[in-house]
Amino acid sequence: MSGYDRALSVFSPDGRLLQVEYGQEAVRRGTTAVALRGKDCIVIGVEKKNVPKLQNPGSFQKIALIDNHVCLAFAGLNADARILIDKARIEAQSHKLNLADPASLESITRYVAGVQQKYTQAGGVRPFGVSTLIAGFDVNSNVPRVYQTEPAGVYNAWKASAIGRSSKGAREFLEKNWKEDLSREESIRLTINSLLEVVQTSAGNVELAIMDPGKDVEFLPSEQIDSIVKMLQEEKEAEAARKKNGRAAATSASTTSQS
Amino acid sequence: MSGYDRALSVFSPDGRLLQVEYGQEAVRRGTTAVALRGKDCIVIGVEKKNVPKLQNPGSFQKIALIDNHVCLAFAGLNADARILIDKARIEAQSHKLNLADPASLESITRYVAGVQQKYTQAGGVRPFGVSTLIAGFDVNSNVPRVYQTEPAGVYNAWKASAIGRSSKGAREFLEKNWKEDLSREESIRLTINSLLEVVQTSAGNVELAIMDPGKDVEFLPSEQIDSIVKMLQEEKEAEAARKKNGRAAATSASTTSQS
Amino acid sequence: MSGYDRALSVFSPDGRLLQVEYGQEAVRRGTTAVALRGKDCIVIGVEKKNVPKLQNPGSFQKIALIDNHVCLAFAGLNADARILIDKARIEAQSHKLNLADPASLESITRYVAGVQQKYTQAGGVRPFGVSTLIAGFDVNSNVPRVYQTEPAGVYNAWKASAIGRSSKGAREFLEKNWKEDLSREESIRLTINSLLEVVQTSAGNVELAIMDPGKDVEFLPSEQIDSIVKMLQEEKEAEAARKKNGRAAATSASTTSQS
Amino acid sequence: MSGYDRALSVFSPDGRLLQVEYGQEAVRRGTTAVALRGKDCIVIGVEKKNVPKLQNPGSFQKIALIDNHVCLAFAGLNADARILIDKARIEAQSHKLNLADPASLESITRYVAGVQQKYTQAGGVRPFGVSTLIAGFDVNSNVPRVYQTEPAGVYNAWKASAIGRSSKGAREFLEKNWKEDLSREESIRLTINSLLEVVQTSAGNVELAIMDPGKDVEFLPSEQIDSIVKMLQEEKEAEAARKKNGRAAATSASTTSQS
Amino acid sequence: MSGYDRALSVFSPDGRLLQVEYGQEAVRRGTTAVALRGKDCIVIGVEKKNVPKLQNPGSFQKIALIDNHVCLAFAGLNADARILIDKARIEAQSHKLNLADPASLESITRYVAGVQQKYTQAGGVRPFGVSTLIAGFDVNSNVPRVYQTEPAGVYNAWKASAIGRSSKGAREFLEKNWKEDLSREESIRLTINSLLEVVQTSAGNVELAIMDPGKDVEFLPSEQIDSIVKMLQEEKEAEAARKKNGRAAATSASTTSQS
Amino acid sequence: MSGYDRALSVFSPDGRLLQVEYGQEAVRRGTTAVALRGKDCIVIGVEKKNVPKLQNPGSFQKIALIDNHVCLAFAGLNADARILIDKARIEAQSHKLNLADPASLESITRYVAGVQQKYTQAGGVRPFGVSTLIAGFDVNSNVPRVYQTEPAGVYNAWKASAIGRSSKGAREFLEKNWKEDLSREESIRLTINSLLEVVQTSAGNVELAIMDPGKDVEFLPSEQIDSIVKMLQEEKEAEAARKKNGRAAATSASTTSQS
Amino acid sequence: MSGYDRALSVFSPDGRLLQVEYGQEAVRRGTTAVALRGKDCIVIGVEKKNVPKLQNPGSFQKIALIDNHVCLAFAGLNADARILIDKARIEAQSHKLNLADPASLESITRYVAGVQQKYTQAGGVRPFGVSTLIAGFDVNSNVPRVYQTEPAGVYNAWKASAIGRSSKGAREFLEKNWKEDLSREESIRLTINSLLEVVQTSAGNVELAIMDPGKDVEFLPSEQIDSIVKMLQEEKEAEAARKKNGRAAATSASTTSQS
Repeated sequence: MSGYDRALSVFSPDGRLLQVEYGQEAVRRGTTAVALRGKDCIVIGVEKKNVPKLQNPGSFQKIALIDNHVCLAFAGLNADARILIDKARIEAQSHKLNLADPASLESITRYVAGVQQKYTQAGGVRPFGVSTLIAGFDVNSNVPRVYQTEPAGVYNAWKASAIGRSSKGAREFLEKNWKEDLSREESIRLTINSLLEVVQTSAGNVELAIMDPGKDVEFLPSEQIDSIVKMLQEEKEAEAARKKNGRAAATSASTTSQS
Repeated sequence: MSGYDRALSVFSPDGRLLQVEYGQEAVRRGTTAVALRGKDCIVIGVEKKNVPKLQNPGSFQKIALIDNHVCLAFAGLNADARILIDKARIEAQSHKLNLADPASLESITRYVAGVQQKYTQAGGVRPFGVSTLIAGFDVNSNVPRVYQTEPAGVYNAWKASAIGRSSKGAREFLEKNWKEDLSREESIRLTINSLLEVVQTSAGNVELAIMDPGKDVEFLPSEQIDSIVKMLQEEKEAEAARKKNGRAAATSASTTSQS
Repeated sequence: MSGYDRALSVFSPDGRLLQVEYGQEAVRRGTTAVALRGKDCIVIGVEKKNVPKLQNPGSFQKIALIDNHVCLAFAGLNADARILIDKARIEAQSHKLNLADPASLESITRYVAGVQQKYTQAGGVRPFGVSTLIAGFDVNSNVPRVYQTEPAGVYNAWKASAIGRSSKGAREFLEKNWKEDLSREESIRLTINSLLEVVQTSAGNVELAIMDPGKDVEFLPSEQIDSIVKMLQEEKEAEAARKKNGRAAATSASTTSQS
Repeated sequence: MSGYDRALSVFSPDGRLLQVEYGQEAVRRGTTAVALRGKDCIVIGVEKKNVPKLQNPGSFQKIALIDNHVCLAFAGLNADARILIDKARIEAQSHKLNLADPASLESITRYVAGVQQKYTQAGGVRPFGVSTLIAGFDVNSNVPRVYQTEPAGVYNAWKASAIGRSSKGAREFLEKNWKEDLSREESIRLTINSLLEVVQTSAGNVELAIMDPGKDVEFLPSEQIDSIVKMLQEEKEAEAARKKNGRAAATSASTTSQS
Repeated sequence: MSGYDRALSVFSPDGRLLQVEYGQEAVRRGTTAVALRGKDCIVIGVEKKNVPKLQNPGSFQKIALIDNHVCLAFAGLNADARILIDKARIEAQSHKLNLADPASLESITRYVAGVQQKYTQAGGVRPFGVSTLIAGFDVNSNVPRVYQTEPAGVYNAWKASAIGRSSKGAREFLEKNWKEDLSREESIRLTINSLLEVVQTSAGNVELAIMDPGKDVEFLPSEQIDSIVKMLQEEKEAEAARKKNGRAAATSASTTSQS
Repeated sequence: MSGYDRALSVFSPDGRLLQVEYGQEAVRRGTTAVALRGKDCIVIGVEKKNVPKLQNPGSFQKIALIDNHVCLAFAGLNADARILIDKARIEAQSHKLNLADPASLESITRYVAGVQQKYTQAGGVRPFGVSTLIAGFDVNSNVPRVYQTEPAGVYNAWKASAIGRSSKGAREFLEKNWKEDLSREESIRLTINSLLEVVQTSAGNVELAIMDPGKDVEFLPSEQIDSIVKMLQEEKEAEAARKKNGRAAATSASTTSQS
Repeated sequence: MSGYDRALSVFSPDGRLLQVEYGQEAVRRGTTAVALRGKDCIVIGVEKKNVPKLQNPGSFQKIALIDNHVCLAFAGLNADARILIDKARIEAQSHKLNLADPASLESITRYVAGVQQKYTQAGGVRPFGVSTLIAGFDVNSNVPRVYQTEPAGVYNAWKASAIGRSSKGAREFLEKNWKEDLSREESIRLTINSLLEVVQTSAGNVELAIMDPGKDVEFLPSEQIDSIVKMLQEEKEAEAARKKNGRAAATSASTTSQS
């Protein structure tokens, strides 16, 4: 079956686009990113690679601002992602300039996914090796929204989703624990917990952004993340201990408790 | 015979375009879509994949509005379909702007199929992995019409048709049960029944659009679909029971009864 | 000899263009079309594929109007043919606009064949998988004319011709039975009989267009075709019976009698 | 040695252009064409393929008028030839428009050969599978001239030449029998005789054009050709008979007598 | 797995871009470069190949000025690097011209990395075989910054980093010895020591640039480098001697002491 | 070593351009051409292929006028040569128009060689299969000059040179017999003799052009060439006879005598 | 490892550009060129191939003037070199025109090397098979400078360098014998001696250019070169004789003496 997977934009006999599937493989090699909607907030968390000791921790953020009200997190090839981010920013700016109104979250998402699709059909280029989570609020209603795009150029809206290396485990955790109308604090805890489930959890390697309607995006300082991580790990251990001791954890009302 | 199927836009010795056939294979891997004409309505029903638990059910609609009076449902690659939908929308808008008259349903269909053909003959691009059902009313006469386009760029008008994964079974069901001048309710029932024939029928995974002349397209809320599905399944079971009991189903006048 | 037939626009060592020959193979897989000149009329008949039960019988006509006075029937890839038809229509319109005179039949034919040739010599595209019959009247003299074009870009004028799947049999039948100055009725009968010779002849699958000078093209309604087909089949059977009974068919003056 | 002959415009190790040679093969598969200069006339004769019974005999002329005073006959791919003819016509017209003077025969020939050369050196196109005979009179002196071009883009002037399937035999015949200052009638007889030497000679399949300075080209009606052919064949038989009878053909002064 | 690594911009089945990885190999064959931030200075040191005896030592500087306040050092293909340097210079100038303000260090870095990314995705070109260290001060705050870009188009900010042939060893040395708020002299010593760790250390083959806010970049003359190198080597030997003698090096407060 | 010689403009591992070498092979298959400088004249002689009996002997001259004072003779592919000749003529004309002065011989030569070089480095085209001899006088000093260009795009000035099929033998002959300040007649004799050395010497197949400063180029009529050829052959035979007879040819002062 | 070396601008797995290395091979097949700086002069010497007897010795100079004050010598493909020379000349002229100041030597060198680099990275072209030595004086200070560029697009400044077939030997000789502040005569002697070391030294095949600040470049006439060569060879033999005789060459103060 050699050949179908090398030539760009060619179907295999069973109707698949192998270069796109290989691009999704590049996503699967990327660090994990999680985004979820709370009652009236959005929390985005990303795994950070073990940054070499001398690299500036914040030098390349895996969560990028596209516009005041729109964040984009990604998994996959960093350099590819930056191109998408730059294109999305320009699109958002030119929308504002031309129409005197910020672009809706969906129109930005559709634009990003459209760029990704174009690179799967035209000759001479390869697909983007990137999945993205695009998050923000409806311009008028302030309803929080999270979209996900993929190398094939597909996009969907999610309540909570995860992409990248450990997305499968993180998403299963989210499915078990996400609920409608999470408070701001619950949202943060759930986001971090879903990453802790799958990431080697030394505290330093999580990045966190919190979006509230009408406010600037808050990038949580790493010390604050560390203290939350610590607290959550202690709770987890306490929980485990209670279980081990056979005692019923009658008073545990935490959203993030798990077996 | 290696080679004929990999190079774009090359005939095989028996005069076939293999890349187009592989693109049709991509359609056959897509979810099923059904559209049919009633007396003075059109009903479109599509199978929805088991949406992951946290994905917004309505985030990517497989039934898209091209214009006030034109719907497009598709089977195949989602990202490809979106490109076709965007192109069709722009074509419809620019037709309206330039000619101060909505484009006819057939001219939109011809446009979509023409785009699809172009991608089968020019070098450097692959065919679209998408079949579409384009439905609407004649601008003046309000006669309902359903067109179908294919990766090769072919289009035809249908009374009722189905595309995608289980299109063969759905179309056979339609051939047995479709009649001229179906009422609005009968049309809805037949559409859903034809999908239930072939789709793993947990109620949630059907999407339904109903078009009436001069009115906005009605996207049936999923609860309403659920209650219809439920009712139809009960009827079916009752029918089956009657059969099993050897009793004649004398009072059954339903269009959708089947053995 | 691998390679000569895959690369576009390359001669094989014996001076052939294999991609063009494969494109002719695509024509040979298409449904049959027949066109013939009567005294002062032209009749075009085409085989229609067994249309699925729910497809609109008339949804895609294999006989297309290029201009008021010009018809084009084809055999081969439908989607390719539509492109040629659209191009021919635009050419005909722009000729009228620029020169305030309808284009002659031959100039339209030359244009269509020229488009076909270009796709056999330039890189990056494949030949059209289509043969056409282009029919009409000389603009001033009202002399009926029938032209045929082929994937190679060749065209010729014919008294009567057939293209597609069963063109060989149909053309032999025409050679035996066509005469100068056929009346309108005789022309219709001969056209249908030539198709009945080669097509599985359930009445429904023939499409018929009749051109008279200075009048609109008449697309015969299928009921009318059916009654003619029926009549012709009865005649044929009667003829066969007479032969079988050894009786001389003294009174048979029909043009279409055959052994 | 695979490869040298497939890629366009690549030399083989011994300095040959194989695609050009294959294009010449396409010429060798074409029907024969002959052109010769008389004292003050030019005669062009071409073999016509056995036209199918119902094809219009004159529908595609192998002898084309480029300008009032210039004819072009060809051997090889018909569709390719038509492109060259169209290009030559446009060149001739635009020369007249721009310079208010008809283009000289040689400048037209150089143009045609230049187009052919370009297709042997540039990538992405194949050579033309066509040789041409371009004939006419010097604009001022009325001297008759015959040029020949080939797929490689070479051209030469000839007193008399032949191209296509049986050109070798026809040219040998011409070499034995052509003389300076042939009269109009002798030129016609020699042209036809040279074709009869090599072509299966049922009268109908010869096409003949006669050019006289300052007059329109005369395309001989086929009945007239038939009667000449008949006469020549009778002469030939008489000659053969005389030879057989051992009698000296003392009175035979015909230019076309041969052993 | 042949093929994935030769075609430009194609993913391998496991989602890698092999041409980019091979380009990183070209970097790994290049000479080593080191850059580090001091308290309010930046020091850049590069290994110089053994320059042939007659080559001008300073003829091709591996440390290039992009703008008054921005330096770029590189490892990899020299000719590729020069292209990046020229592009960066033009970008910096045109930013100044258009916006009447020097470009920020990060925007220059983003530009260089963007150029590198583009050459990994578009067809017809290969990636740049170059990694760069881009160093300078924040335009307003005078905070020193060091960025690193790679063939994939990725960039990051570093406190201290090394690229090229022996970057691994040099970076490990930096990780052990770099501290916040190094003085100007300590920075120079550390830079040279990190190179001496990995480079065959004949004094002549180190190049050194020192950046101070608001001043011109100082390219240290080689004699001065030589004397520092000599001093550092003596210290090192003394240190080694002390160790060997089992005596505690109580008074050694040098930043550059190592075991 | 397959592949290096097929792809255009690719070096082989030993640094050769095989397509250029194959193009030189095409030159080596071409007819021989000789050009030499006399005291104040230039003589160009070319071998002519055995022209078919009916081809106009002068129809394609292998010696072309580029400008009043510049001649070009070639060996190799005729059609390629014509392109070079046309380009050179246009260059010469446009030089005259723009600068009101004829182009110098060297600038024309440099232009021709530059065109040839371009076709060895750019993709999508093959080299020219042509070597040329470009001859003429310095515009002011009337010094005769002969340049030679080759498929690689190289050019050199010569006193006397030969290209094509038998260039090696002809050049050796010239090396033995060419002297400074040959008279016009001696130049003609030497040119013809050098061709007679290597060409099958039936008189008709030599073409000769003689250039004198400030005069039109003289193309010697073939009868005159024939008589010279005859005379030279007789001299040669006489010489051979003298030798055979052992007699010293004391009075032979001819430049062209050879052993 | 087939494939990496054929496709243009593709890295091999170990990060090399094989086409560039093959282009350097073409340089290594070229004739040797040497350039060196004296106190206030530059001498350039090049090996000349054994020019065929009848070729004009000076017809193609391997030392070209780029501008009044800039010379370029090269090794490798002549036709490629001429292109670089022409481009460099145009660049130098347009610099003068636009900036009313001659271009600096380095900016010309950077331009030439930049052209060479571009041909190693873009698709569809091959690298230049040429190395160059570019020599001249600083515009203001009259300091002599020699630059060298290579097929990869790299350039460096040299005190003295050699390129081409025997560059290794010549450069070693220069390393042993070159000193600062050579007089004009010493520079000439050293240049010739370095070539005599490696070139088969029949006097005629050396070309020599001497540059003095503010003066026209002096191309030494070959007789003068011959007499120098002769003298140097005699010195060399005398030296060898002295050595052989065991006598100390006490009085030998020549720069060029060697063992």
